Amino acid sequence: MTDRDLSPVTVLGLGPMGRALAGALLAAGHPTTVWNRTAARADPLVARGARRAPTVEEAVRASPLVLACVIDYAAVRAVVEPAVEALAGRTLANLTADTPQRARAMAAWAARQGVDYLDGAIMTPAPTIGGSAALVLYSGPERVWHAQRDTLRSLGGSADWLGPDPARAAAHDVALLDVFWTAMSGIAHAFALARAEGITATELAPYAKGISGLLPDLVDDLAGRIDVGNHAADVSTIASAAATMAHIVEAAEGHGIDTGTLRAANAVAARAVDAGHGADDFSRLVRVYAETAA
Amino acid sequence: MTDRDLSPVTVLGLGPMGRALAGALLAAGHPTTVWNRTAARADPLVARGARRAPTVEEAVRASPLVLACVIDYAAVRAVVEPAVEALAGRTLANLTADTPQRARAMAAWAARQGVDYLDGAIMTPAPTIGGSAALVLYSGPERVWHAQRDTLRSLGGSADWLGPDPARAAAHDVALLDVFWTAMSGIAHAFALARAEGITATELAPYAKGISGLLPDLVDDLAGRIDVGNHAADVSTIASAAATMAHIVEAAEGHGIDTGTLRAANAVAARAVDAGHGADDFSRLVRVYAETAA
Repeated sequence: MTDRDLSPVTVLGLGPMGRALAGALLAAGHPTTVWNRTAARADPLVARGARRAPTVEEAVRASPLVLACVIDYAAVRAVVEPAVEALAGRTLANLTADTPQRARAMAAWAARQGVDYLDGAIMTPAPTIGGSAALVLYSGPERVWHAQRDTLRSLGGSADWLGPDPARAAAHDVALLDVFWTAMSGIAHAFALARAEGITATELAPYAKGISGLLPDLVDDLAGRIDVGNHAADVSTIASAAATMAHIVEAAEGHGIDTGTLRAANAVAARAVDAGHGADDFSRLVRVYAETAA
Repeated sequence: MTDRDLSPVTVLGLGPMGRALAGALLAAGHPTTVWNRTAARADPLVARGARRAPTVEEAVRASPLVLACVIDYAAVRAVVEPAVEALAGRTLANLTADTPQRARAMAAWAARQGVDYLDGAIMTPAPTIGGSAALVLYSGPERVWHAQRDTLRSLGGSADWLGPDPARAAAHDVALLDVFWTAMSGIAHAFALARAEGITATELAPYAKGISGLLPDLVDDLAGRIDVGNHAADVSTIASAAATMAHIVEAAEGHGIDTGTLRAANAVAARAVDAGHGADDFSRLVRVYAETAA
């Protein structure tokens, strides 16, 4: 606790991320109330000064701002439904990860209940919360954001408001995690292929770091092309990328390694080639992805 | 040309990469002979001092080191077969991209013909060649590497010899391009998903740069786990990655966007979960990829 008169906050859900959120609030000096279905999860936080609420309703009544961080939005609804009367007139900041579609549905539900609603997407892992590396994206009504932003900044790092559309944070979340998990799958697959060729992960790693380190600049290059529709190739073409992916698939299949991910990626490139866009830049695939569901 | 007595080099194949190789050799002062099936491709190089050979055999006879950079190894064989007598006793450095399996076959063919053979993989795009950012990986007999490395360093940047197994450069190549093209596919897909949610590429780019900028450190983390078989989760688990991928697939399908790549990646994660490894770190998927071809 500090001498400053910081606003009370409630945290619903004490998985690793919920515990990190509550810990950051306590560290910043907010009176912090916590609730979890398995109450013992709160013990370390209670030892640090958190108040353990025996019911969701008591937890909600303890604070003007309620953070929810559970497994998905269906779980959020299941947790808060019994306390909906208590929640009316307060702010629910839903930091659970789910789809943009369900963020819109959740915001509509909150509006019907008279609950101020912010949808949040936590973009960095639990250990970053409370520190400078944390990044949390928010969307929802500007009025609600302005009222809560100082408190939400106690979660550390950057707290970015993306606009009033409640789905905007979740839309960024799924797109950014698409980059992340597709790339991570490629990295894991590459280590498997290298190992089959007698190359240890430690041997491949310096080169794999080098090639993955090229990606941020290529994000900028792609973005610059996509928004203006400039898909004229400078350096490499969709056709050469497709030929390369075919080599990788062949090499992996020669070792009995699963190649589904890269075959699916190459099928999209092949569709572009078949449609006459083989000489275009890879950025053109953004349109191919959107044109046809396989 | 310089006053130094630099070794002559021949370049077979004058696509964008072959032209970049010949240009770097000319810039470094090597007497450079070039050949291309479409002879006019050599014009700008001839204007800079390259000698144009009318046949592959004459091109080969002009230099003790012959670089080949064409579409694939079948094309290399088709190009050099008519000049195989001239090639005997010289060094062929094959900088064409193809599979490790075909690199081994090519090395065996070269050995039968009395040709010294290095297999090379150019890891950086044509505009880097001759400059400090270039990276070319080589494998093949140490004696041949030692004889040619000073000349090959005229191609710029880093020239790394990976060992005597001729397939080693190509094995690194396919593994590293696996990282690259899988990630690039994820980035293109993410931009398509974001656009369907009304987020421009320019808006998403700063965040996409941030999340892709996490990958090099995660390469190190994965590598450290894989070689020692430590798949105990610290921060996130395969099960949570699988749940996230399912959200992304659902969000993309809601917009009619192709989801084949991420569904295939998630199928591998799902197999790990089904096998009881859902609480493990993502690094465990390296073993799952290798265990079963889908």
